[in-house]
Amino acid sequence: MPDDFERMWGDLAPVGRAVSSGGYFRQPFTTPERELAAWFVEQCEARRLRVETDAFGNVVGWWDGGAGPAVLTGSHLDSVLDGGAYDGPLGVVSALAAIDLMRSRGVVPARPVGVSVFVEEEGSRFGLACLGSRLATGATSWETARELRDREGVRLGDVVEGGTSALLADVGTFVELHVEQGRDLVDRGAAVGVASKIWPHGRYRFDFTGSANHAGTTRMEDRQDPMLTYAMTALAANKQARLAGQRATFGRIEVEPNGTNAVPSKVTAWLDARCSSDDALVGLVEVVSRQAAERAERDGTAVEVTAESVSGSVAFDPDLAARVAADHEGPDWPVIPTQAGHDAGILSAAGIPTAMLFVRNPTGVSHSPAEHAEVADCLVGVSALADTLERLTR
Amino acid sequence: MPDDFERMWGDLAPVGRAVSSGGYFRQPFTTPERELAAWFVEQCEARRLRVETDAFGNVVGWWDGGAGPAVLTGSHLDSVLDGGAYDGPLGVVSALAAIDLMRSRGVVPARPVGVSVFVEEEGSRFGLACLGSRLATGATSWETARELRDREGVRLGDVVEGGTSALLADVGTFVELHVEQGRDLVDRGAAVGVASKIWPHGRYRFDFTGSANHAGTTRMEDRQDPMLTYAMTALAANKQARLAGQRATFGRIEVEPNGTNAVPSKVTAWLDARCSSDDALVGLVEVVSRQAAERAERDGTAVEVTAESVSGSVAFDPDLAARVAADHEGPDWPVIPTQAGHDAGILSAAGIPTAMLFVRNPTGVSHSPAEHAEVADCLVGVSALADTLERLTR
Repeated sequence: MPDDFERMWGDLAPVGRAVSSGGYFRQPFTTPERELAAWFVEQCEARRLRVETDAFGNVVGWWDGGAGPAVLTGSHLDSVLDGGAYDGPLGVVSALAAIDLMRSRGVVPARPVGVSVFVEEEGSRFGLACLGSRLATGATSWETARELRDREGVRLGDVVEGGTSALLADVGTFVELHVEQGRDLVDRGAAVGVASKIWPHGRYRFDFTGSANHAGTTRMEDRQDPMLTYAMTALAANKQARLAGQRATFGRIEVEPNGTNAVPSKVTAWLDARCSSDDALVGLVEVVSRQAAERAERDGTAVEVTAESVSGSVAFDPDLAARVAADHEGPDWPVIPTQAGHDAGILSAAGIPTAMLFVRNPTGVSHSPAEHAEVADCLVGVSALADTLERLTR
Repeated sequence: MPDDFERMWGDLAPVGRAVSSGGYFRQPFTTPERELAAWFVEQCEARRLRVETDAFGNVVGWWDGGAGPAVLTGSHLDSVLDGGAYDGPLGVVSALAAIDLMRSRGVVPARPVGVSVFVEEEGSRFGLACLGSRLATGATSWETARELRDREGVRLGDVVEGGTSALLADVGTFVELHVEQGRDLVDRGAAVGVASKIWPHGRYRFDFTGSANHAGTTRMEDRQDPMLTYAMTALAANKQARLAGQRATFGRIEVEPNGTNAVPSKVTAWLDARCSSDDALVGLVEVVSRQAAERAERDGTAVEVTAESVSGSVAFDPDLAARVAADHEGPDWPVIPTQAGHDAGILSAAGIPTAMLFVRNPTGVSHSPAEHAEVADCLVGVSALADTLERLTR
């Protein structure tokens, strides 16, 4: 017998949870994330969904029947470092629960319905967000991806087999349900909403190089200290984004040699930047890079900026969004943009008509142990997803 | 047969050397540093020096004979992370070479002479500089020290036995030879110099706490981002030290969760501060802490400052310094201050008359793979140390 939403949610709660913070460490191809993947296969089998995997670790559980093209729904099970419980798993659990709900209503879809789990959506291990969906759609080639390395130097090519994917061959529509990562639905008093677009987003590695030296004996004026160049750049990025109503974050840094009594030789830091338009993103990164270079000149250091990944603006299929938002009982669901990247954005960019459903998040906090959604809202989400799938598979 | 200076130097060159940077990783009680410690015992035995160890891992090789109080010389064999070859080992190798030189001259000291190696001088593993000499003098108690933990959480008490030390019981004078860590001797055109004093020095841990959140969806104005508070503090520390002619460095940082797409929940950074007087050090740390607190208020974050170690100003015995600087053939050696901490400072503060000899460093660079001294200058250093020991043991 398949479990209901709350039972499934309880299954996942302890997996990869850090006792100290209450946050989750479910990095791709590590034990907790593999445990979740195995759990997903069990849940598919318990529901007699046919399990199909690809060479990258992506999985779909198929409710076969009817004639294609198929309707796919799902999300991901990996987390950022010390992340929340909802980002990803809510979409997977809700998809399984929506199938249970459709079956309990006696729905017989006229098309195949699949529940998907894409690997490494967060990019927290190999650095490229939406890695699984990029590989499944061909947006990123395996030749490129297999050389990606994690922080310990492990190659992606040594972790998964790699090759090709046929998972999306017969997919006509994709629907991803996700916890909201802001407070738009709180402001609008709605339990669920529909995505209009995803802001363009890039990750840029800033390599600041200077000269290691003794922190005591080296006169301040004799230093080439890359930490100073970094510090000014982090403040500049924040200020520029604030002034322009965009987003810029330096949340990750690596320092060499990272010793208390040594001026660093190198500081590497990653800029996460997201803007309301592609042009605004280019402009923001340009101005931050220029300010970094100017400060490097003053500090006697050097800075090199490498775009590790850039995703253009994604506008979801407007007709589909309008239909999902309106074609059900009760008031329309609000249609809102998001600043977060999603596998749905990759599938949409690959030409698959795609929609996203959001579930209200009382604090708007995400990528944090404090991420939350009320059970009542989650159940509204399951019902909304079941309604949407039912209509799309008629 | 004991080796000469260059032969000994060649023995040490490959131990703990990183191929990529050419720097040294000789952290206390790790394989490379233990290899050096074993090498030192071999060298003592080859010279028929009686090896005495204490419960903390400090070692002295004794050239017994005559009546106490003894004259001790030596330095340390550990390095900072990715450090240079000279800081520490030069003093140990020069001490052994000086004994060879004294013996070749037929010197028979009227007092015992010891060659010492103190553990963890750099504080690069357990965070407390001059740990071995602090324990040997009782400046730090074992009850306190045994709870110190390295970055992996390993307790010092689980690495060394601990207890008491009798190594210094009969020591009347200490002389440490060290590579210079600035360019005073270059400016003065001298191969060797004598220390007048050590600047006061402190290490302060700054814990900046904020709120983890999604780097894309969280509006800039809704963030409590501790990275910003840190960045302003690093710039403020540099500016204050520059204006006051002192030293302040943030060279070590740890970020949680340190993910590209997450606003950090916590940034921990260490301030290394050194000043020409105790009052100036207190003043510098106060103003940096106040600026950090003011910025934290603006950022919605919090900052807590913890002094992990503070060493007051050390004035070496002025009569001994004058005697060492003048009582030899040729022109007097210059007497200069240093901003670097040394075991010599700890022994001096413990009431043991102490002197330091410096060997010229062409670039002044230290705590870096680029740290250097010419062999000719090193040999002048060996000769100066032998002369000094000979006069002190008459």
